[in-house]
Amino acid sequence: MRFFSDNAAPCHPAVLDALAAANRLDTAYDGDAWSKRLDGAFSDLFETPVRALWITTGTAANCLALAALCPPEGAILCHRDAHIEVDEAGAPGFFTHGAKLTLLGGEGAKLLPEVVDAACGRVRADVHQVQPRALSITNASEYGLAYRASEVAALGEVAKRRGLGFHMDGARFANALAATGETPADVTWRAGIDALSFGFVKNGGMSTEALVFFEPGLADETLRRRKRSGHLLSKGRYQAAQLLALLEDNRWLANARAANAAARALADAAGPERLVHPVEANELFVRMTPAEASTLRAAGFDFYDWAPGEVRLVTSWDQDMVAVATLAQAIRAL
Amino acid sequence: MRFFSDNAAPCHPAVLDALAAANRLDTAYDGDAWSKRLDGAFSDLFETPVRALWITTGTAANCLALAALCPPEGAILCHRDAHIEVDEAGAPGFFTHGAKLTLLGGEGAKLLPEVVDAACGRVRADVHQVQPRALSITNASEYGLAYRASEVAALGEVAKRRGLGFHMDGARFANALAATGETPADVTWRAGIDALSFGFVKNGGMSTEALVFFEPGLADETLRRRKRSGHLLSKGRYQAAQLLALLEDNRWLANARAANAAARALADAAGPERLVHPVEANELFVRMTPAEASTLRAAGFDFYDWAPGEVRLVTSWDQDMVAVATLAQAIRAL
Amino acid sequence: MRFFSDNAAPCHPAVLDALAAANRLDTAYDGDAWSKRLDGAFSDLFETPVRALWITTGTAANCLALAALCPPEGAILCHRDAHIEVDEAGAPGFFTHGAKLTLLGGEGAKLLPEVVDAACGRVRADVHQVQPRALSITNASEYGLAYRASEVAALGEVAKRRGLGFHMDGARFANALAATGETPADVTWRAGIDALSFGFVKNGGMSTEALVFFEPGLADETLRRRKRSGHLLSKGRYQAAQLLALLEDNRWLANARAANAAARALADAAGPERLVHPVEANELFVRMTPAEASTLRAAGFDFYDWAPGEVRLVTSWDQDMVAVATLAQAIRAL
Amino acid sequence: MRFFSDNAAPCHPAVLDALAAANRLDTAYDGDAWSKRLDGAFSDLFETPVRALWITTGTAANCLALAALCPPEGAILCHRDAHIEVDEAGAPGFFTHGAKLTLLGGEGAKLLPEVVDAACGRVRADVHQVQPRALSITNASEYGLAYRASEVAALGEVAKRRGLGFHMDGARFANALAATGETPADVTWRAGIDALSFGFVKNGGMSTEALVFFEPGLADETLRRRKRSGHLLSKGRYQAAQLLALLEDNRWLANARAANAAARALADAAGPERLVHPVEANELFVRMTPAEASTLRAAGFDFYDWAPGEVRLVTSWDQDMVAVATLAQAIRAL
Repeated sequence: MRFFSDNAAPCHPAVLDALAAANRLDTAYDGDAWSKRLDGAFSDLFETPVRALWITTGTAANCLALAALCPPEGAILCHRDAHIEVDEAGAPGFFTHGAKLTLLGGEGAKLLPEVVDAACGRVRADVHQVQPRALSITNASEYGLAYRASEVAALGEVAKRRGLGFHMDGARFANALAATGETPADVTWRAGIDALSFGFVKNGGMSTEALVFFEPGLADETLRRRKRSGHLLSKGRYQAAQLLALLEDNRWLANARAANAAARALADAAGPERLVHPVEANELFVRMTPAEASTLRAAGFDFYDWAPGEVRLVTSWDQDMVAVATLAQAIRAL
Repeated sequence: MRFFSDNAAPCHPAVLDALAAANRLDTAYDGDAWSKRLDGAFSDLFETPVRALWITTGTAANCLALAALCPPEGAILCHRDAHIEVDEAGAPGFFTHGAKLTLLGGEGAKLLPEVVDAACGRVRADVHQVQPRALSITNASEYGLAYRASEVAALGEVAKRRGLGFHMDGARFANALAATGETPADVTWRAGIDALSFGFVKNGGMSTEALVFFEPGLADETLRRRKRSGHLLSKGRYQAAQLLALLEDNRWLANARAANAAARALADAAGPERLVHPVEANELFVRMTPAEASTLRAAGFDFYDWAPGEVRLVTSWDQDMVAVATLAQAIRAL
Repeated sequence: MRFFSDNAAPCHPAVLDALAAANRLDTAYDGDAWSKRLDGAFSDLFETPVRALWITTGTAANCLALAALCPPEGAILCHRDAHIEVDEAGAPGFFTHGAKLTLLGGEGAKLLPEVVDAACGRVRADVHQVQPRALSITNASEYGLAYRASEVAALGEVAKRRGLGFHMDGARFANALAATGETPADVTWRAGIDALSFGFVKNGGMSTEALVFFEPGLADETLRRRKRSGHLLSKGRYQAAQLLALLEDNRWLANARAANAAARALADAAGPERLVHPVEANELFVRMTPAEASTLRAAGFDFYDWAPGEVRLVTSWDQDMVAVATLAQAIRAL
Repeated sequence: MRFFSDNAAPCHPAVLDALAAANRLDTAYDGDAWSKRLDGAFSDLFETPVRALWITTGTAANCLALAALCPPEGAILCHRDAHIEVDEAGAPGFFTHGAKLTLLGGEGAKLLPEVVDAACGRVRADVHQVQPRALSITNASEYGLAYRASEVAALGEVAKRRGLGFHMDGARFANALAATGETPADVTWRAGIDALSFGFVKNGGMSTEALVFFEPGLADETLRRRKRSGHLLSKGRYQAAQLLALLEDNRWLANARAANAAARALADAAGPERLVHPVEANELFVRMTPAEASTLRAAGFDFYDWAPGEVRLVTSWDQDMVAVATLAQAIRAL
């Protein structure tokens, strides 16, 4: 019974069905019928005209967005625990040709507007210091917290005033929305977001995320950079079809709700004392002695040791609720 | 009836079956059971221990190979019609941090050893000139010609003597081998190749190529660069499964033979007068007036205008032989 | 008696005097009194408001200009014998983050408008091909030929129509103007040039060239890139003072005229049969057998073997006219 | 009376004399008589065979050293107040093609071995995290503190154990040695340093620093990178001559001692209460109210506001000791 990572989960059956349906002759690259439907489908979802590109990984989606928002000589403000800083092997430096990540603090890996504003204020405008040019937040955050639209808007106001492009790493965007009940539009472009990495792989997809530009002009150079970075697959229809399958019938939202519900059940079992962060999306950070962790593992549960005395549990779109109940009970029994 | 591009063709059914079979919980990235089988499967095929990585595009496979073989301050020798020069949007410059492509001539987009050697000889060894550090050839070439093992070995000898890493862009490697009947080993590492981009997508695959290192040490930094360039997919099992499905029962070779046979039938119909290059793999470059091209298009055949008075026909692994026969007849009737 | 390179010549005494005069306390970087006078001094010379930066090398000046005119994913059109291609160790790739040099032919290392136009016409506008974004010419050319203002203007027209930034590598700009008698303004911004590397080191300077932007907006990001590439010296007054000393009393022009006159005297001695290119500036490419070259060397003359049967002679601002006469006589006597 | 920056000071007269002496014909680039003497002169000073390159700026010297020690996909550990992080406009990212600076804390901008070791220990060895590959310290530190040889050696031991290249930014290396009385050898290669940026410009030079490699093999690729980054000046003799002039008769050390002595006099006047950091080299960070600062400025003293309630005073090699005494008295009188 695996609570290790949502990347470990299989794909939603609708994704496989969509691949089978797309398995016919069509134009190469992104000239096919499926890829051509993406802008429309995401524009509908976001209630505004957007440009949407399939991208195979969250790392590439994030970094293509950052390259569109920040020149090589600029800095990107982000949380010090941000995925782009911690777990992308320096990809932001690669895609932006050496732009700098300026690391900020904040509870639960979330950023506060005053922290961003102060960081900008500390930079001299001369040529010796790297100027902040972009802001990146992760929603849901690396600790499973969801930004409210109002929180994003407050950051968006600072970004606008300070001249920063504004990117959202939404590897678990679906889980964040499932948690808050807010709309995709409210938490993104209406709050000042310019570009969103919209995660699908952790949420029932197979091999594609969506990179959504709310500033459609940003997409043009990105199409060139997608090719230049080797991310323009030659049979794009199989990528687009995955996204369309998960958008259809709001499967993406249903999947995220299922994962969140599983996390909620475990959080209730753990109780506030054990929880390092409030549980809003599909990740739990749980205080636990090594002995307790061993007990759970002996009972067949798999998970990640996050820090001394702390484990991480991640639930998935397909989480077996019987296993969840069993684990909940085991946690209660610790 | 489409003779436009082998990227337009669908996937082999075994690929879809393999995706369905892989659709279960497993370790993320390349820690899964399928990815772990790649080194072994390709080592068997190449009769020597190799390292094999799934990579979603030929562009990325080529450029990760080049980055492993050439430092930023070096030059890569290639044909002036090479895909890396003409159709990869500057990706070699991106992945190598600005290394230079030195363009050479040669019949049919093939390079000759004396041309490579002379190009090296023209470079002063001082710090003002970019030093050649790698050689890249395309097999089958951009004009559909297959290198014989002996031809590659002669280039490999120059590469070794001149201190050049040696890369083969094998987007249509299968078609080349199907044409010559030689073994994968003979035309690669036994002839001095250090890294091979082994194409599967044009040959029945969906979304992955293989990057094969015959110098296993080169793979380690490449694993980091694969991640750093956003090419480490989080559900790698679906990438590896495609490759394994096409290796199984030598489907890759059967597919290539089918595509080549279709090309051969068309070449025979066209006759030597019309053929710009000998037809060895699955591409034909055919002399044709605009009026003749229109006649064929009016009869329902799709293809690419390559140059004034010249069209390109590409056949695929799944080419309908009835359509091929009809086109052959139409060409004969021109 | 040295005819090897104009880089071998000493500095003009006024340059050393200027360094001594600047040897006092002042603001660091480019905040000093001398640096602040550059924009004005060059604006006067060019009869229009320009921005002028001191840069220690022609390679850096060229490449900062190219980085201002061409994005990483673009191409720079230049002659295949251009210094940026042949003798800058790949610096254009470094400064532009991997932009490509597209090499064109042309007599005497000069480009013709129709060649540039045709090169642009060959590029498909899709994302697979690198789009031309800049044009770079060398004046005087690598073979010592000077562009006339009308020739530059014809290229400028193509550049404008094709959306190319237009750069002039003027390592020997002074020699070119001395040859044609045209004005700095006519051969640059009035002819469509956006950025000029204006060489001083080969022409009596010590350690600084000028990078002149006719599109003043381009200077701002370049100031950052100058620092980011380590080219913002901390005691900039000693750099600016050199340029001002050579601008004063049009010393730059007098120096170039002296060098050109020496070249002319040698060209007359050599006669048209021996000259590979017409001699306009301060370089001569002279047909000569190895035996003849040995004879001259035995007589104490130093020069460069350019190609089989061809030597290069370069004259300098301080060329001893007695030595020139002696060499002229020796050439005549061959 | 200026206490703003040691970059504001003029050059030592011996430097100007050396330029005049070098003002004659010689080979271009670094093939001249002066440049050829550098390796020997620095080898003598460091009591071991070294390779020494002239480089016009500390930023370029630092970043060429880092590029020699750290690949694009690696991380460089440094203090969060290090010049390479704070005041080089992102040059490390440019020269290393996007390597990352990992920022560490430490009193007085100095690093402690246990902090470096712990930082290495926090990095997972997988491909998702950027691996530490180099360590950079500044000596004297950004707050004017000198490392003792034993302190460097303790860091060198960690660097060696963790596989890190070890760089010293010695913009004020002379001042550090003048403070400690230790030898150049003891505080560098004997303590594990691989590459040193040895500053001369702040210490009486005009336009060149020295980049010294104790691992001579590192110099070869750096010679190419020096050219590729536009830092190979064409009349190198004027650069080398500056360094040789300051090495001669240990002028570099005498200059540093003079600057340090001036700082010491001011430090004694300020007293320990006012000093934010102990004063060892030629920088003072002095607690002062805005009113006090105004008083000093009204008396004709120039300096930098470093932080609220804190000013920075920098003394130079040529500091007028009368002015120093006057300022000392004025500080005592506050």
